[in-house]
Amino acid sequence: MAAALSAQQLSEKHRSTLDQALETIHTRAYWSPHPEHPKAYGDSAAGDGKAAFEALLGSRFQLDQPGTDGWVDGEVSPYGIELGVEYPHPDPEMLLPAMRAGMGTWRRAGAEGRAMVCLEILARISARTHEFAHAVMHTSGQAFMMALQAGGPHAQDRGLEAVAYAYAEQVRTPQTAEWSKPQGKRDPVNLTKTFTPVGRGVSLLIGCNTFPTWNGYPGLFASLATGNPVLVKPHPRAVLPLAMTVAAAREVLAEAGFDPNLVALAAEGPGEGLAKRLATRPEIRIIDYTGSSAFGDWLEENAVQAQVFTEKAGVNTVVVESTDDYRGMLSNLAFSLSLYSGQMCTTPQNLLIPRDGIATDAGHKGYDEVVSDLAGAVDRLLSDDAKATAFLGAMVNPQVKERIEAAAEQGEVALASRSITHPEFPGATVRTPVLVKADGARKQWDGADTEAPYLSECFGPVAFAVAVDSAADAVDLLRHTVHSRGAMTVGAYTVSKEVERMVEDACLDECAQLSLNLTGGVYVNQTAAFSDFHGSGGNPAANAALCDGAFVANRFRTVEVRRPA
Amino acid sequence: MAAALSAQQLSEKHRSTLDQALETIHTRAYWSPHPEHPKAYGDSAAGDGKAAFEALLGSRFQLDQPGTDGWVDGEVSPYGIELGVEYPHPDPEMLLPAMRAGMGTWRRAGAEGRAMVCLEILARISARTHEFAHAVMHTSGQAFMMALQAGGPHAQDRGLEAVAYAYAEQVRTPQTAEWSKPQGKRDPVNLTKTFTPVGRGVSLLIGCNTFPTWNGYPGLFASLATGNPVLVKPHPRAVLPLAMTVAAAREVLAEAGFDPNLVALAAEGPGEGLAKRLATRPEIRIIDYTGSSAFGDWLEENAVQAQVFTEKAGVNTVVVESTDDYRGMLSNLAFSLSLYSGQMCTTPQNLLIPRDGIATDAGHKGYDEVVSDLAGAVDRLLSDDAKATAFLGAMVNPQVKERIEAAAEQGEVALASRSITHPEFPGATVRTPVLVKADGARKQWDGADTEAPYLSECFGPVAFAVAVDSAADAVDLLRHTVHSRGAMTVGAYTVSKEVERMVEDACLDECAQLSLNLTGGVYVNQTAAFSDFHGSGGNPAANAALCDGAFVANRFRTVEVRRPA
Repeated sequence: MAAALSAQQLSEKHRSTLDQALETIHTRAYWSPHPEHPKAYGDSAAGDGKAAFEALLGSRFQLDQPGTDGWVDGEVSPYGIELGVEYPHPDPEMLLPAMRAGMGTWRRAGAEGRAMVCLEILARISARTHEFAHAVMHTSGQAFMMALQAGGPHAQDRGLEAVAYAYAEQVRTPQTAEWSKPQGKRDPVNLTKTFTPVGRGVSLLIGCNTFPTWNGYPGLFASLATGNPVLVKPHPRAVLPLAMTVAAAREVLAEAGFDPNLVALAAEGPGEGLAKRLATRPEIRIIDYTGSSAFGDWLEENAVQAQVFTEKAGVNTVVVESTDDYRGMLSNLAFSLSLYSGQMCTTPQNLLIPRDGIATDAGHKGYDEVVSDLAGAVDRLLSDDAKATAFLGAMVNPQVKERIEAAAEQGEVALASRSITHPEFPGATVRTPVLVKADGARKQWDGADTEAPYLSECFGPVAFAVAVDSAADAVDLLRHTVHSRGAMTVGAYTVSKEVERMVEDACLDECAQLSLNLTGGVYVNQTAAFSDFHGSGGNPAANAALCDGAFVANRFRTVEVRRPA
Repeated sequence: MAAALSAQQLSEKHRSTLDQALETIHTRAYWSPHPEHPKAYGDSAAGDGKAAFEALLGSRFQLDQPGTDGWVDGEVSPYGIELGVEYPHPDPEMLLPAMRAGMGTWRRAGAEGRAMVCLEILARISARTHEFAHAVMHTSGQAFMMALQAGGPHAQDRGLEAVAYAYAEQVRTPQTAEWSKPQGKRDPVNLTKTFTPVGRGVSLLIGCNTFPTWNGYPGLFASLATGNPVLVKPHPRAVLPLAMTVAAAREVLAEAGFDPNLVALAAEGPGEGLAKRLATRPEIRIIDYTGSSAFGDWLEENAVQAQVFTEKAGVNTVVVESTDDYRGMLSNLAFSLSLYSGQMCTTPQNLLIPRDGIATDAGHKGYDEVVSDLAGAVDRLLSDDAKATAFLGAMVNPQVKERIEAAAEQGEVALASRSITHPEFPGATVRTPVLVKADGARKQWDGADTEAPYLSECFGPVAFAVAVDSAADAVDLLRHTVHSRGAMTVGAYTVSKEVERMVEDACLDECAQLSLNLTGGVYVNQTAAFSDFHGSGGNPAANAALCDGAFVANRFRTVEVRRPA
């Protein structure tokens, strides 16, 4: 039977997009084929997307995948509505062999064939961006616009970026080569060699609650594009966006003549611990994980049969030493602290501010003044409840709220967290950030038995304004924090070339991604696909970066066959 | 103080070589800048090299590296002479911090600067190829010509190949980029971004006894070129070639203005187990290892703080199904079995031959006839004792001899191993291969409690002529062997397109490197740098291949700094 989607059709449709992605990962210039503006998806997209999402509620999510031994549900939206979607629960003994069955055909598609199928999957997902936005919103608690952008185009960008890296890596070695070795006066020896990228085996994606698509797509598409089946194990509170992704992938695979079981869902029952059980199975050769450091470390230490890519937790620091745009700095930081209620792995937690204050374009500002001005900037940003919810979203889980309350007991509260009633979803828990003053004197953190509260990750809208004795001390505390706790992001504000160099050296030594003097519309917690690396992979917060050669190179191996020419 | 060797001088000398290497890893054509012929090194090279080697004997090998807490010796040549060289023994508490001290300067040299220094180190080693040949010969037991070629130019090629991959990987991301994101009617946001490759930390090279330089150089140069200090822990019986390498590296680093402690030696006392002690230290972030599966598996499971690259052991198979060049096949196989007395990780062990015999250009040959013809071919190749030692070399250690004797008790001996007295070194243990008949019926190997002797790796000149019921059975046994034991190489002889396809599919499915119908001057156990992959990294024999993107990509991380443009 001929495939409904031929390789040629797919190539005509997507090859130029792949080429542009390949070029952009080299130039690192701005580019995206996925529009950020909701209106770009057409006049009816908003209504259609909402209706499609609502039609899923309370239904059984049929995937028609083998090895289903029951159905599980239980997602509750952070906005208070019950999703009531039932998902197939897998029997790995049946499902894993079925997923491997299509590997040979998928291998024979070649690097380009696989890339084109991946781009078609992304295109189908892109066309449903509004529907995905609702699914991401009602599982992560992100505000709608953020769910649309981060969960839609930005996630699709990261997926496409991974496909581009995967493709580039596989075609570094030619498919065939002629090899002729001179033998002095005798005839040369001649060999014909073929090189074939082969996948490692089943790849396991362990999804997270806050960014199911954004953090899930890089691993999913990197593994699929390099020839591996992908088993998607979503966070139990954020299944829907990944179930929709799996459905789209299966649909395209089948239409293009491949085994749809190359992508499958593994939804779990409450408290089942399915990820742990799957992760050490011999069939699982690759794992992508986003979540807590505890489980990420466990995976790195125990899933030794697999290539393990983790994004865990860190403690993100911003050094505030001086600025020539005090207002811009305050509003930029206020936005960074407020966006999605600080529930991003990239949100700053510790703001290191010299006890003696900082030089600014508005004159010298004391430590207390900087802190209260920042508190004021956050207050102003979030003064209108309805508008505030559009930045804040909802608390993703009850633990975040508990941490806000615990943080307020750690020191003098410079800005108290406020409860906001969501105008549309009264069941949502919406909280503004808390800002706590803390003592950054060296004796508070430099020693074996120091337990400064700001040295622990406090996931959520909690920030510490840490008073340090000098810029040099700030840099030392930054180094110590990245080295011992890890960091997804570092920021710094300084007009001093000397301090800039010190911070830069610290980040190079400890392997952390640095944003300097951001005062406009770019925020330390946001990275752009094709240009920015998300995480470094070189400090305790993550063992991989999105996206680079190391993220894709070991997902496949190259098999050589040589024969006399 | 200005460096004796400037970056510009090094670039003028080596940049074109790097460029050629970069081109060749893409074309996979034949190329080498390191001559194989001993005479290519000049008229006096042979004498000078021997004299230089002899001058080292019985001496203390001074490296002037910090943290030396004593001296160790104990190498005995497989040719019977005592080397008597003393090496510094390290105190890791002192040495490891000293090795890290130069990382910042090394990082600032950039990808090209580091590559040029690596190429200068290789050039210095290349100029001393004859001296290295004696050192490799008298630690590995390789015959002189093989020690010169495999330990000299071929090892240098593999080192250069690793530098080329490392360089290419680091420059995939530009050093700087301008990023401009449109904002509709507002001005675009503009950022300037810098990207810097940074090493992970100290890299540990755990050397092997049989190919100290060939197996050591890829990891050493890949790590050094990506910004990491390298601690070289040689096999206690093969220290000298790597000590000479470390000395050459330290000399060049110092001359080029870098800290010589970026490369250091860790020689160990008898039974000290230094590799195990070093491998799990937090400073060690990368490990390259060649040796037994037991210790390689231990490293993979326990050194979880490091990137671990292993080459372990496997069971190499050749399927003998049919041929149109019976004589060529026999002589090719005879050479493969005899070279370095089968003490290569790539030497075939199991020859799978249909019980009913095979079709050849010399008519149908029964199983017994093929086996006895192969035995005859080995006998003829090694009939002259003096010439035979030039292929065989010496037994690297006493265990190999024991395995030859044990193998002879596993079945009917088709070719007995013979002792040869080395004309120049009477103390050497020289043995010809043993060929043992074995039953490859499915019930012998397909089952949980089967223990066919040929399913264990029998390192050394031991081969099994395994009688199988059919070509299909041979392919199944091949699959089973690669899957459960791993394989560095697979060979096959067949004129049948159908059998060829079956063998090829098995190798693609199980991720093994395949050589088809080799009858001339290329052997299944030899791979050429820049063109052939050594190992696949996808079966139990090794978790990495020499050399590909995956071998270098995770030895460094890229730190990004972004600032408003």
